[in-house]
Amino acid sequence: MVSTFERLVRFEDEAGQSRYGEPIISSVHDLDEVVSQGTMEATVWEGSNLFSLAPTTQVVKVKKLLPLLTAEDVPIVKCVGLNYIKHIQEGGRKPPPYPSIFIKPRTSVAGFNEDIPIPKLAQDDQLDYEGELCIVMGKTGKDIPKSEALGHIAGFVCSNDVSARKWQRDPNFAGGVPQWCFSKGFDKFAPLGPVLVSPKVVGNAGSLRLQTFVNGELRQDTNTSDLLFNTEDIVAFVSQGTTLEAGTVIMTGTPAGVAMGMKEPKWLKDGDVVEVRIEQLGSVKNRMSFL
Amino acid sequence: MVSTFERLVRFEDEAGQSRYGEPIISSVHDLDEVVSQGTMEATVWEGSNLFSLAPTTQVVKVKKLLPLLTAEDVPIVKCVGLNYIKHIQEGGRKPPPYPSIFIKPRTSVAGFNEDIPIPKLAQDDQLDYEGELCIVMGKTGKDIPKSEALGHIAGFVCSNDVSARKWQRDPNFAGGVPQWCFSKGFDKFAPLGPVLVSPKVVGNAGSLRLQTFVNGELRQDTNTSDLLFNTEDIVAFVSQGTTLEAGTVIMTGTPAGVAMGMKEPKWLKDGDVVEVRIEQLGSVKNRMSFL
Repeated sequence: MVSTFERLVRFEDEAGQSRYGEPIISSVHDLDEVVSQGTMEATVWEGSNLFSLAPTTQVVKVKKLLPLLTAEDVPIVKCVGLNYIKHIQEGGRKPPPYPSIFIKPRTSVAGFNEDIPIPKLAQDDQLDYEGELCIVMGKTGKDIPKSEALGHIAGFVCSNDVSARKWQRDPNFAGGVPQWCFSKGFDKFAPLGPVLVSPKVVGNAGSLRLQTFVNGELRQDTNTSDLLFNTEDIVAFVSQGTTLEAGTVIMTGTPAGVAMGMKEPKWLKDGDVVEVRIEQLGSVKNRMSFL
Repeated sequence: MVSTFERLVRFEDEAGQSRYGEPIISSVHDLDEVVSQGTMEATVWEGSNLFSLAPTTQVVKVKKLLPLLTAEDVPIVKCVGLNYIKHIQEGGRKPPPYPSIFIKPRTSVAGFNEDIPIPKLAQDDQLDYEGELCIVMGKTGKDIPKSEALGHIAGFVCSNDVSARKWQRDPNFAGGVPQWCFSKGFDKFAPLGPVLVSPKVVGNAGSLRLQTFVNGELRQDTNTSDLLFNTEDIVAFVSQGTTLEAGTVIMTGTPAGVAMGMKEPKWLKDGDVVEVRIEQLGSVKNRMSFL
């Protein structure tokens, strides 16, 4: 294992300083509760960067949670395109023989509670959500065998793979080749959850309930046990011949229930709030802000 | 314009130190000649990183050229998939309405004379070359109008978009969705030329002869005037809603003549040497080294 924390957060302490730390809680349900009550404490972790932290014995009060992973920590966001059987069917596709990989730039990273700026070209009748489980690599590696994958993973976070469907799929925009990188790569189109949860707590994250809500309405509700390729399969696959740098985020794909799959798609509108909640990992909740 | 150099190189001086500088030559043909003669001189440029250099008055002898752009200078490599009419036809496709964008990670960057390590899964009857003109962004920007694109471009280099075609296109590997990011994103699959040539010298690089040789045999021979989307179109398109960081490399697509387009494709074999030469920009020449 890369680290010995169970859960890692970044927060502002009572002196207004940004710190890393391990929240003193027994589950993420507690986290939600103690944060809202203002009674949360954390053991401080220190180091030169997010992936070289070590624990101290200092315990401080948490004033508020801050985004944990920023564009400075994340060199790149790799994504699996098709990985839940029902979502593959709602897009009219067949299961792929290997994970389908596309990439978002690091400039797409956003905080768990930040507004997502939606550029004009992504606004009309096409904006969609994709609740996803993310892998965060804790140390740099290449050709990582499946049996060693968990040892390279710092932890898991929840996320939303915000998508502009016309640019992704409409032949009038995308041409013959789906534009996955462009249509999903706009600034802040990859908000990430506030808590990094270690494999020590959730193993390979392969049996967690994943739910997505739009303005409180449940839209996606699946378990990560439905993943076609699990997190260890994915790390082994994408690291073939390819260095995965520490901090690399890998989005593992989304289940059924996106707007695109509806008979009359409920595209996201200005001001809509999307929340992706994963059991044990907390939630990422962002307002869509049309520019 | 971002910088005032005409051509920028990195080199080892006679004391064995790595320096940036402007070679004292009147064209890149001279560069080839003076480098091989060992008589090259350069005006030294200094600064904290490649995109904040300023000229000095010091002139030194160049002992040997070094790779100019490394993975530390390049946050990401964005690529246009289909951009020369004849290459689009040889792949059996229609011209797209907008540039088709995919992404290579920065770990794919390689030097102009480095061997390219070919992992086992990219070896058999699928390895291909793509000679390409690259844009190098000189300052960070977003929503850059076409009329201001040249002002954000540090310069142009030549490159090879090394590609594993089975992973890119064969349904038994790629499934229903072309795997552009995975099949072209292996370590060192994006070797870049040694000379960055400013728009001061070549404008938008829109009328330069591009040639690719495999073991000295001419395979691609086109002019960048055949680009469907020119360099200014591309910068304006990809910067929509998306920050382009300084150092971002944009590969502009490849012309006809790749192995994939041949009746009996001459796939690259172990030891093959691919040279991409672009008028005014010099050449990038790499041996394929099967692992």
